[in-house]
Amino acid sequence: MKVGFFQFRPLFGKPEQNCKKIVTALSDVDADLIVLPELALSGYYFKDKDETLTYAEDPDNSRNLDALSALAAQRNMHFVVGFSEKRGQQCYNSAALIGPNGIEHIYRKIHLFNEEKFCFDPGDIPFTVNEVNRMKIGIMICFDWAFPEAMRTLVAKGAQLICQPSNLVLTFCQETMLARSIENRVFIITANRYGEDKRPQGSLKFTGKSQLVAPGGALLHRAASQRDAVFITDINPVDADNKMITKHNDLFKDRRPEFYI
Amino acid sequence: MKVGFFQFRPLFGKPEQNCKKIVTALSDVDADLIVLPELALSGYYFKDKDETLTYAEDPDNSRNLDALSALAAQRNMHFVVGFSEKRGQQCYNSAALIGPNGIEHIYRKIHLFNEEKFCFDPGDIPFTVNEVNRMKIGIMICFDWAFPEAMRTLVAKGAQLICQPSNLVLTFCQETMLARSIENRVFIITANRYGEDKRPQGSLKFTGKSQLVAPGGALLHRAASQRDAVFITDINPVDADNKMITKHNDLFKDRRPEFYI
Repeated sequence: MKVGFFQFRPLFGKPEQNCKKIVTALSDVDADLIVLPELALSGYYFKDKDETLTYAEDPDNSRNLDALSALAAQRNMHFVVGFSEKRGQQCYNSAALIGPNGIEHIYRKIHLFNEEKFCFDPGDIPFTVNEVNRMKIGIMICFDWAFPEAMRTLVAKGAQLICQPSNLVLTFCQETMLARSIENRVFIITANRYGEDKRPQGSLKFTGKSQLVAPGGALLHRAASQRDAVFITDINPVDADNKMITKHNDLFKDRRPEFYI
Repeated sequence: MKVGFFQFRPLFGKPEQNCKKIVTALSDVDADLIVLPELALSGYYFKDKDETLTYAEDPDNSRNLDALSALAAQRNMHFVVGFSEKRGQQCYNSAALIGPNGIEHIYRKIHLFNEEKFCFDPGDIPFTVNEVNRMKIGIMICFDWAFPEAMRTLVAKGAQLICQPSNLVLTFCQETMLARSIENRVFIITANRYGEDKRPQGSLKFTGKSQLVAPGGALLHRAASQRDAVFITDINPVDADNKMITKHNDLFKDRRPEFYI
């Protein structure tokens, strides 16, 4: 199964330009699934909810998401792409699974980071596992990394590959994902952005270093910090089905929830 | 608050000798709390439950645990020490919190590692927080590291310092504890053993590198791999009470258990 990521630098408040950038970069790739960064169309550092809504996409009426669906159809592939999701006056920090027939699932970020709390509504849909060519994928977004329960839940539901669109400003996540892959024995793609959002309220720099980790914490690839990067590799998703960390320890069957909060 | 660890190499099946080694090494230390390795009195690699029981301690009648209580009284300090706990025909891989007045709490390992499943009964007492000079400590043992729920539960119950007696044969744990400290913002002492248990059924080498991590993942100290080491340092336990990872994110209040398994 050919999976990977596209790391780039979305321009703030330029959804059409960012969409074109994606379509151009991926117009001739050969893959089953490509993960893109969080808020890949809109940029990240909004000053308030009104501004967030201004650059948000309504999935039922979005030329940008339609363009990604068209690309998915043309290349017979899937994307996981972060975007600002507008539903009336609600706005979510979301990620869509897009295939040749359009949007197949939308995940809404459950753990909002810092000032995102003033720009987005919190996610209200359970963690879900979807199939892409029989590979089971689970989506989480960026700061969800800090809550071990997020990936735990997705893997317990059967996810073999975690797709994590990100706009990371710290570097904790990349290292922590190695631990997550050890404790859950799962593939993880962290698709991060790079560059900077300079806004009146401040400036945020993003750390790049998108990566792919294999079950057991093996770092298969980590991109450079401040550079466009397309990375695609072949994985065998069923490698994530073996949860034995020793001959006698299954990391999920050995859980003892009666003792957990 | 002066806390630390004693890393050493217990001899298999020599509880009295191991106890004397501990008492000698710590006879003049000045500390509030010292963490010792898992199974520090008995050694580790038992062939079956009968052999485990042979070298186990009954806490109500143990000259070795009494000797550690006497040392705690003499130095006016506390220990967390791993030992094989005999209760009739039951046997637990346990850790005792010992103070000047004797045993204050016993934790029984909840997640048994590999062949331990044939030598010990699984822990049957909830994760508990105890006070040592007003510092709140939580105990987990070695392989509990692989289950993020273990430390999560202890910290949610108020633990400021995690005491982790260990007999690690892999090196995953030491790195993973950095992630655990980031996600829980807590102090962690991993007191590991070193050396080798050569037995008829095989041989196990232990990895040393005992360590102390501060909230947020800062490695304050890591010992050498194959050497005795006493390490004691001054920490401020209330540093672990601040769970804010950003201005607007409390790592515990931001949990959304309604979405977790």
